[in-house]
Amino acid sequence: MDSIKNLITLLGQNARTAAKTLRSADTQQKNNALNNIAAQVDKDRKNILNANQKDLEQSKNNGLDTALLDRLMLDDTRLDGIIESLSQIATLSDPVGEITDLKFRPSGIQVGKMRMPLGVMGIIYESRPNVTIDVAALCLKSGNGVILRGGSEAINSNLALYSCVKQGLINAGLDQNCVQLIDTTERSVVSELVQATAYIDAIIPRGGKGLVEAISDSAKVPVIKHLHGICHTYIDKDADKRKAIDIAFNAKTRRYGVCNATETLLVHASAVGRIMPELIAKFVTKGVELRGCKETKKLSKQIIQATEQDWDTEYLDAILSIRIVNSMSEAIAHIDRHSSGHTESIVTENYTSGRRFITEVDSSSVMINTSTGFADGFEYGLGAEIGISTDKFHVRGPVGLEGLTSQKYIVLGDGHTRP
Amino acid sequence: MDSIKNLITLLGQNARTAAKTLRSADTQQKNNALNNIAAQVDKDRKNILNANQKDLEQSKNNGLDTALLDRLMLDDTRLDGIIESLSQIATLSDPVGEITDLKFRPSGIQVGKMRMPLGVMGIIYESRPNVTIDVAALCLKSGNGVILRGGSEAINSNLALYSCVKQGLINAGLDQNCVQLIDTTERSVVSELVQATAYIDAIIPRGGKGLVEAISDSAKVPVIKHLHGICHTYIDKDADKRKAIDIAFNAKTRRYGVCNATETLLVHASAVGRIMPELIAKFVTKGVELRGCKETKKLSKQIIQATEQDWDTEYLDAILSIRIVNSMSEAIAHIDRHSSGHTESIVTENYTSGRRFITEVDSSSVMINTSTGFADGFEYGLGAEIGISTDKFHVRGPVGLEGLTSQKYIVLGDGHTRP
Repeated sequence: MDSIKNLITLLGQNARTAAKTLRSADTQQKNNALNNIAAQVDKDRKNILNANQKDLEQSKNNGLDTALLDRLMLDDTRLDGIIESLSQIATLSDPVGEITDLKFRPSGIQVGKMRMPLGVMGIIYESRPNVTIDVAALCLKSGNGVILRGGSEAINSNLALYSCVKQGLINAGLDQNCVQLIDTTERSVVSELVQATAYIDAIIPRGGKGLVEAISDSAKVPVIKHLHGICHTYIDKDADKRKAIDIAFNAKTRRYGVCNATETLLVHASAVGRIMPELIAKFVTKGVELRGCKETKKLSKQIIQATEQDWDTEYLDAILSIRIVNSMSEAIAHIDRHSSGHTESIVTENYTSGRRFITEVDSSSVMINTSTGFADGFEYGLGAEIGISTDKFHVRGPVGLEGLTSQKYIVLGDGHTRP
Repeated sequence: MDSIKNLITLLGQNARTAAKTLRSADTQQKNNALNNIAAQVDKDRKNILNANQKDLEQSKNNGLDTALLDRLMLDDTRLDGIIESLSQIATLSDPVGEITDLKFRPSGIQVGKMRMPLGVMGIIYESRPNVTIDVAALCLKSGNGVILRGGSEAINSNLALYSCVKQGLINAGLDQNCVQLIDTTERSVVSELVQATAYIDAIIPRGGKGLVEAISDSAKVPVIKHLHGICHTYIDKDADKRKAIDIAFNAKTRRYGVCNATETLLVHASAVGRIMPELIAKFVTKGVELRGCKETKKLSKQIIQATEQDWDTEYLDAILSIRIVNSMSEAIAHIDRHSSGHTESIVTENYTSGRRFITEVDSSSVMINTSTGFADGFEYGLGAEIGISTDKFHVRGPVGLEGLTSQKYIVLGDGHTRP
């Protein structure tokens, strides 16, 4: 236990020192590092794939299921993706040092804000080895030091990728401790890491709800967390039929296993007759299991009775719960009670309904006439995302480079003193 | 203990319900409440001053010192200040619902951000009763519910002021639970409050370093904290003599007991001969005790030898530590090591030095050619401040209405589905 504490202290001190230099590294130097890492991954393909093979074999022997093995697996196409993502992050504009809102005050001083890195991030993630590179790249570009803790099943892949990161940093003249990977698979490392307020400024857990909850419960360091996505699409009484059907269908069936998929459809009673027969038929043809409230059940024999638990379930599957409501207030009340605060969308042609929905619904993304499937860092123009925050503190929704920074004040004067 | 837990649960549930309605209350209604509270305080002067008298007498009997008694004391002038502050907050623009950065994306959707309240705030404070009103007003205007826990020595004053708040809320047609005051002086209330993640979105402790540290150590709810202000003024080799003397003198002597007072003066060796004799004489005449490094000590017999501990001390008194440095890098290294991250200022006519200082120094306020005394919400144009954050997460520096909010995403489309 003491040796783990010592390890975290050492990593923490290294990270603090490195982050200090990274804070004022210029944009070109950071971009050079990113491009160097990309080149190194390309050069090391064989080595990385061999390491990944080792992880895959070990995991098969340990009886990991197919879905997990797929997440763990790397091949040339996935390495191409990693390389592409590095070049993309290099082209994003640097958030650090951006000055905004610089204004004169009556006293004569000018007051503005300058964007700065948070400091040192701790990232705890599960099986996907590409996270090692993605996260290193986003932290690097946003000027943050980072300590990575990947899943034990991916340790060889992660180490192989991490050696590319280290080489890329050194080649760009940056401190190699800007990114550090914890190479022990000892479990107590995580509990020490999330307590290390002296060295870590924020923790981002990337993984299932279980991991995120466990970390949030024990952390002393602030956590940027993404719990789950119980997203709603609400078809208003004034919804356009075509848009309603397209949006609801896309929001559920685009991909089932993603957090921005709609899990519950709310429908205004007076829109049911006009829209639902066609929409239900479409879902049934697609093979989506429908679980409805009492009123919904009357619409088709294919619809199973929903239980109270359904409204609180993130299916991540070809299942949709449907509830008919008598007013928009009822729809908003349902969302308030059952949403996980991720993403909700209204389909309506009515200006007042749309205006009210985006004002009153308090989720990290609120939409009018679009599929909840758009809730994503790339679609929002962030260039990349390190995760999606369902918290309200610090940052909400998809977290890009800006979410890894905050703003200090700058004050410019000419000998001003305060009376 | 269980009864305290039940109390917090009840207050928390009330606050959540009230905050939900407050989130979408319109600006006029919130301003009406603020003006109503002001009118009620004016009407209740006698009652408030009587209650305050009770607190003062009890505190005198308990042997509270003069400084604390002064903080606790209310009179007509201070009530005028409270009333004035309420009207000022009513005139500030409403941060809630502000939409920014709404832009079209290549997919055809428009993506922007909308500012929303954090939810429910918990404020833990010490003897000043005016905090009850100031904090209630700022939370109200920013759309947040709030649970207040004041010092036990001010309980009667706080209850009298709180009854004005309640009346003001009711008269404006708002839920009176938007603001709740904990009326038990039981100490375990605080530890329950800072654990109540289900009901409280952020805690702001307002008080001495001891209070803030104790709360941060035990809190599960995010804390916006202001630990202390060890602020630095650095006189660069290219400083203008007049500006350097005026700024350094003002930064130390404007008021001694405030967190934005400069505690350490750093002086470039090559500026010493030109500037320090006059500046030292000025400090000595004013009665400021000077504690210097070895080199500084040579300048005057009045200067005491500084110890290592001096560089880490917030004097809040007529004491200044002085260190002569051989380069700006040395000055920045000293600040990095000893600053509390509150406010630092450089005095220089050199463009490159100024640019480097504001980029590299990572404190919540960084200044060029101004007194650190300007680090203040009113001076920055926030209209009012609920505290000063020395954290980096969520908000840095003086915290006004915006610091009590965060931004959700809004997405506007026209039937868009994601491929």
